[in-house]
Amino acid sequence: MPNTLYLPELREMLADNKTAELEEFCTALHPARTAEFMEGLTAEEAWAVLQHAEMPLRSEIFGFLDEEKRVEIIETIDREQAAELIGDSPPDDRVDLLQEVDPEVVRELMPLVPTKERRDIMRLSAYPEGTAGAIMTTEFARLDEDWTVGEALREIGKQAEQLETIYYLFVVDREDHLRGLVSARQLISAMGRPNTEVADLMERDIVTANAREDREQVADKVARYDLLAIPVVDHEYHMLGIITHDDVIDVMREEAAEDAYRSAAVEPLEQGYLRTRVFTLSWKRGTWLTILFFGAMLTAFALETFEGFIESIPWLVVFIPLVISTGGNSGNQSATLVITALSTGEIKLSDWWRVVQRELGMGLLLGGFLGSIGFLCAVWMAPSLWAALVIPITLLLVVVCGTLSGSVLPLVFSRLGLDPAMMSGPFVAGLIDLIGIVLYMKVAQWLLVVGPPL
Amino acid sequence: MPNTLYLPELREMLADNKTAELEEFCTALHPARTAEFMEGLTAEEAWAVLQHAEMPLRSEIFGFLDEEKRVEIIETIDREQAAELIGDSPPDDRVDLLQEVDPEVVRELMPLVPTKERRDIMRLSAYPEGTAGAIMTTEFARLDEDWTVGEALREIGKQAEQLETIYYLFVVDREDHLRGLVSARQLISAMGRPNTEVADLMERDIVTANAREDREQVADKVARYDLLAIPVVDHEYHMLGIITHDDVIDVMREEAAEDAYRSAAVEPLEQGYLRTRVFTLSWKRGTWLTILFFGAMLTAFALETFEGFIESIPWLVVFIPLVISTGGNSGNQSATLVITALSTGEIKLSDWWRVVQRELGMGLLLGGFLGSIGFLCAVWMAPSLWAALVIPITLLLVVVCGTLSGSVLPLVFSRLGLDPAMMSGPFVAGLIDLIGIVLYMKVAQWLLVVGPPL
Repeated sequence: MPNTLYLPELREMLADNKTAELEEFCTALHPARTAEFMEGLTAEEAWAVLQHAEMPLRSEIFGFLDEEKRVEIIETIDREQAAELIGDSPPDDRVDLLQEVDPEVVRELMPLVPTKERRDIMRLSAYPEGTAGAIMTTEFARLDEDWTVGEALREIGKQAEQLETIYYLFVVDREDHLRGLVSARQLISAMGRPNTEVADLMERDIVTANAREDREQVADKVARYDLLAIPVVDHEYHMLGIITHDDVIDVMREEAAEDAYRSAAVEPLEQGYLRTRVFTLSWKRGTWLTILFFGAMLTAFALETFEGFIESIPWLVVFIPLVISTGGNSGNQSATLVITALSTGEIKLSDWWRVVQRELGMGLLLGGFLGSIGFLCAVWMAPSLWAALVIPITLLLVVVCGTLSGSVLPLVFSRLGLDPAMMSGPFVAGLIDLIGIVLYMKVAQWLLVVGPPL
Repeated sequence: MPNTLYLPELREMLADNKTAELEEFCTALHPARTAEFMEGLTAEEAWAVLQHAEMPLRSEIFGFLDEEKRVEIIETIDREQAAELIGDSPPDDRVDLLQEVDPEVVRELMPLVPTKERRDIMRLSAYPEGTAGAIMTTEFARLDEDWTVGEALREIGKQAEQLETIYYLFVVDREDHLRGLVSARQLISAMGRPNTEVADLMERDIVTANAREDREQVADKVARYDLLAIPVVDHEYHMLGIITHDDVIDVMREEAAEDAYRSAAVEPLEQGYLRTRVFTLSWKRGTWLTILFFGAMLTAFALETFEGFIESIPWLVVFIPLVISTGGNSGNQSATLVITALSTGEIKLSDWWRVVQRELGMGLLLGGFLGSIGFLCAVWMAPSLWAALVIPITLLLVVVCGTLSGSVLPLVFSRLGLDPAMMSGPFVAGLIDLIGIVLYMKVAQWLLVVGPPL
């Protein structure tokens, strides 16, 4: 939510070049709030304001501006100053940012970034998107095993300004192997015994993430163990970086949005809704919509084979939308329940039999209930009670098919190593349309052509 | 994921009463891991193991057991011991737990819980579910404004064991009004100047949550400002408690699951999929499914009014499922995009006109494309090229209606102060079924009854 209350004052200060007031504005609030007040400014104005903040603060406020504005600032300001800003940003953030900046500008900037930071950027950019490596930061607090509590605290106090967190301190050996973890809490508690060695305090059983591990799995670990940060290591247990709790929260939000998009057969967006171009968005929707469309054509072809039969019993047409939408809705519910339970780890593949039993039970209950209502409605339109029976029988079968395929397909996809979310609502509903139409026609043929037993 | 590897050894240790080994098991690992290894045990066995852990560790491991087991342990063990376990658990966790325990047991337990903790439980239970108050913990680090850095660090060192976090320290006055915040990072950085007063270090511009605020909004704040914990205050700015980053992660997971359920028209589950009884689950699905079913009946009634017309042009029936599923799918996509963008705050109500323009554009693009494919297919089945035109025109109109209603309805719901997620896929799709059928029949009547212009 842009906070526009303060905008006129801010513009006035800029116009009159009121240095003292602008410095006050930059320092008075939490950097995130300062950035919020600046949301209405153009990139040029925002940069003019930022120049009144000293260096670590300037890059902190900069880091809270929205991505679009950060990209514009980097692309338009003096290259030397842009390089300084990049050099001073947290390692994980600057890599994300540079991926959005015009490659031509990046080529010009990179030689101006200090060697150490440049190497760091190259190393982090090498990790594929979606992995722990791609979201970690390389700045973390290192301790030596043989330091005392007093030494450790003094050292951390010195490093505090450059580090994203000083609350988890990582004990590494000379080859950077991760040996243990000490929390700032442990150090503070041990302050009364300043000669205690770090080795005596540290925990050796540490939850770690591998650099190539899926970021969603990493987020799960952080959530399960209530961690502030998780160390990222390679296969030889070299300490490469850390992922902090705030980055985990961002990952979880992005993944939740992706899951929501998938559930509606939209290819996940890289940027937000308003910032994705209409054409790109149409493409991301169109591919899946077209696949679903071809699926629906199969239903049309299936229905065509029954054309003669329908012509002879025209009241059947009226219930076509009811039958397929009821099947689709119940299938969508089952698919969502199973996909959510799979993604939170609440059910595993080995639970498949329990899931099938439960869904069969629910299908019978729900199908039976809706079938009864449907029967009352059909009695009205069908020529006889016997003929009206087509509707409840079809509904019962369709709902059971819906709950079963909605639950089994995500499990099958998961078993095949595919993302179960691909078998989400719209796909299950498309399948149920086809099955539903065939069931409906077969039940009708069987009941109406054969006729009542008496 | 229960880790069953260690289970036989654990049971053996219990059978042989190997105290030393059980003590070793309880202390060697992170409490969350210890709890994981115990997942396969019965509640009785788990409690037998836990007795080999000393008191703060015992309640820590207990806190990581799954809820079902914790409830069973509290309900079955000696009341005195249960009360001790409750008294020693984090304030937010124990309130959640007691809500699941048999009320009869709670009545017996409460008098045994120490007065201070008992009052705390009563106070926290009074906050309605879904508010900041209901998820906060009342144990946080308090500082006096006129303490020095040295005093503050010593005090915190002493309190460290009982507190959930010592990384944010809250400065309060005598009446418990929140005056400022100091981070452990600031204290550690200032260790070289131990006589600095807390008042000189503390931040006074603090992001707070009100106790009655929606927990989702609180989670948003923590995510936006990258906080470790957020203080919870009442309307007079009295400090009531804090919500820590790990609780925020739990809130986000629960809210994401709720959104997923809503998107499939399932009433959110309080417990997981497997732990909710089939009958309860059927009820949570059935209510919405029945509402959707009645909606689908309207479509059936609408279709009935065209029965005579359809009888005269039977090939139209074949395309009914195609028309309604295509409209429903495009509406579902739009609804999901808009609901997700609203919930992440990326679009506001004031953006409605931009949203409508974009959705109109996408509707025309997608509808035009799918209409063209549909036309090729219709040429095959319809008696003439002119007649086949019914399909592309209908598809274009239906897709545009889908994208428009899918995007506008969540905005309208949001404007009315209702949850926009209630206008999710299945509801939009149900509406589009009805609109789609009427459009289809009207277009067909118009083209086929009027006939070609030549």
